[in-house]
Amino acid sequence: MSQAQSKEYYERFFQARIEDLHKEGRYRVFANIERMVGKYPKALFRTEDGVEKEIAIWCSNDYLGMGHHPVVIDAVCDAVRKNGAGAGGTRNISGTTNHHIALEKELADLHDKEAGLLFSSGYVSNESAIGTLAKLMPDCVIFSDEMNHASMIQGIRQSGCEKYIFRHNDLKHLRSLLDSVERCRPKMIAFESVYSMDGDIAPIEEICDIAEEYGALTYLDEVHAVGMYGSKGGGIADQRGLMNRLDVIEGTLGKAFGLMGGYITASQAIVDVVRSYAPGFIFTTALPPAILSGALASVRHLKTANDLREKHQERAAMLKQILTQRGIQIMDTETHIVPVMIGDPRICKQTSDILLERFGIYVQPINYPTVPRGTERLRLTPSPFHTDEDMRYLADCLKKVLPAAKPVRLVRQVA
Amino acid sequence: MSQAQSKEYYERFFQARIEDLHKEGRYRVFANIERMVGKYPKALFRTEDGVEKEIAIWCSNDYLGMGHHPVVIDAVCDAVRKNGAGAGGTRNISGTTNHHIALEKELADLHDKEAGLLFSSGYVSNESAIGTLAKLMPDCVIFSDEMNHASMIQGIRQSGCEKYIFRHNDLKHLRSLLDSVERCRPKMIAFESVYSMDGDIAPIEEICDIAEEYGALTYLDEVHAVGMYGSKGGGIADQRGLMNRLDVIEGTLGKAFGLMGGYITASQAIVDVVRSYAPGFIFTTALPPAILSGALASVRHLKTANDLREKHQERAAMLKQILTQRGIQIMDTETHIVPVMIGDPRICKQTSDILLERFGIYVQPINYPTVPRGTERLRLTPSPFHTDEDMRYLADCLKKVLPAAKPVRLVRQVA
Repeated sequence: MSQAQSKEYYERFFQARIEDLHKEGRYRVFANIERMVGKYPKALFRTEDGVEKEIAIWCSNDYLGMGHHPVVIDAVCDAVRKNGAGAGGTRNISGTTNHHIALEKELADLHDKEAGLLFSSGYVSNESAIGTLAKLMPDCVIFSDEMNHASMIQGIRQSGCEKYIFRHNDLKHLRSLLDSVERCRPKMIAFESVYSMDGDIAPIEEICDIAEEYGALTYLDEVHAVGMYGSKGGGIADQRGLMNRLDVIEGTLGKAFGLMGGYITASQAIVDVVRSYAPGFIFTTALPPAILSGALASVRHLKTANDLREKHQERAAMLKQILTQRGIQIMDTETHIVPVMIGDPRICKQTSDILLERFGIYVQPINYPTVPRGTERLRLTPSPFHTDEDMRYLADCLKKVLPAAKPVRLVRQVA
Repeated sequence: MSQAQSKEYYERFFQARIEDLHKEGRYRVFANIERMVGKYPKALFRTEDGVEKEIAIWCSNDYLGMGHHPVVIDAVCDAVRKNGAGAGGTRNISGTTNHHIALEKELADLHDKEAGLLFSSGYVSNESAIGTLAKLMPDCVIFSDEMNHASMIQGIRQSGCEKYIFRHNDLKHLRSLLDSVERCRPKMIAFESVYSMDGDIAPIEEICDIAEEYGALTYLDEVHAVGMYGSKGGGIADQRGLMNRLDVIEGTLGKAFGLMGGYITASQAIVDVVRSYAPGFIFTTALPPAILSGALASVRHLKTANDLREKHQERAAMLKQILTQRGIQIMDTETHIVPVMIGDPRICKQTSDILLERFGIYVQPINYPTVPRGTERLRLTPSPFHTDEDMRYLADCLKKVLPAAKPVRLVRQVA
């Protein structure tokens, strides 16, 4: 190799970074899944050799199966036939359509806010909204729950602001950190309602009380709750009657609503500032009208679908009961998320592989960096369409496959 | 106001930031456009009062009208009816489908690369790929064209690497900056093929020569070229037979391909590293199968659609000719992008407003931060479907509306 780096140098360097992942047992292999409308949670799995096999999906975030609901599918097809496939531009340059405007209005209404704003994804919405709002305010300080999603962390980084990480859902710690900062500075408290990997819920009301006391903006990520909780599917803040106490409620169209895209809802001024200043919002192609048409149908459908929400909770409770009865150690959650703790990346991957190959059960191993090292797990997400029989079969298979004597760590631990 | 910030404080603060934009004349108003399949470039414009009006779109990035092509629309509808609306998870957790795998393979083939990787958007692909690759390499230095897109700048920021900005397309300056850095350090040169706002083209071959000499990775953004240039629509590098000399070619599905989403193509190792390490790729819901099905149809269709590419270039040449004949000052470009320079944000917005309201011509004003201050413009993007008559009408209207004696700046200037 010459003094200058060569193509071979770069290739070897990147190959070595992949090798690092293999050594640690956390190289990710994406399962090739073909979902089929009307058959959820059943789907087709294809091996790399092209062999097909019917499996049951146990780890989808299409929590309520809305991605396969006829009202959604029809709305997508109607819009694509009428208005075409893509938006054709950024929101500012020919990419704003009647579908964007209607959905933003609907989402604002869902969360009882003045305005809504769509983004390419939930990730982009957190990154852009937190990054932009906090950066604009001179000397702003951000207080962030230690379990916040990567996208929120990215937004905090982009803001360039001073930040304090409070222990997960720890109000005393939050308060002591707030006490350590000059009271006159602008502040933002960023947190989630349902934490996706542990399935626990934040003390939203208490955090709002503290925010009021210390004069902080509140930014709540509800992506694992929208559609599924609250009288109209507005999330945990809706369920608890707290939506008006939050300055920004962020959500997604990609989980319970069954499509893709993210959004914020807030006051007119906050939404307008993010709309006007956030590079991740400004410099990107608008979401396709057909996707938004499907999302609008989904949001509207779920506004009155309390039966589906109840069924979802009943199914989650049944799964927890069946697994516990079989002696399978699960994390005790208040939500629809059912983590089976493993605590080792290799065992987690092996367990998942065996379940898929031998039993046709698909549950992806969740390893670092999605969860802290040592807390690797199988994360089960029962839907309204998983039957008792599905659950008993899953429990039987887990019983056979899970390492019997492996001491797993049920305490929360953050890397 | 108490010592702590109040809700009213934050509201007033954000309102003042909006007021700043109004004062500067660059507050953005999104036009509400409803595109109609089969009528492009005609569309419906709706005022805030709900009044509808037929207009002609002159600023879409659906450059070839593929968003309305029957092969695309059918592919979207077929997939949504068969596989549902959303992917239902991140790529790692149940969100990888046969559609993702097929399209990534097709895109790799389009650019003669070993592998491809999809992202939520072109913005996310640049941010994630540049950010991740450069960050991984200890002591990496990035050389970035001063006119690079906001998403590339964001990726460079996220990498945390030392960076040097070279004057636009200036090989001597690039070389002198490379000379200023220790030869043994890893380097990346990041640039675009077609610069979207000026419509000019980078000296790709010469940059590759320099990169080879100095041992730098080359990262090329082809978003305003894919589908439109090259024997199979692989972009300018395809047209010039240079694809094998670039380490990473980045593109979009949201412009000439007519849908949404971004991608990179590169060696297997580079793609695998970005796939494995980039937060913006890992922690986000996968693109919907139906969108990818449409994109696959579009990419395949354009692989052999040289007639459409020729027609597109012919239309762009005709527009330049017609405008020039009428004495309308345009930036002389080598591409399908036709900027009419204005040089003032207020006049730019007013001109656009009058064109829309009085003449049914929609061309969005392009102001800072999309272009440098002082280079505000109307950016025309003629498609294969804009007729001679459309062009003559546009020229007539521009002639009436454009400020006659306003001295415009045709030289490039960067804020």
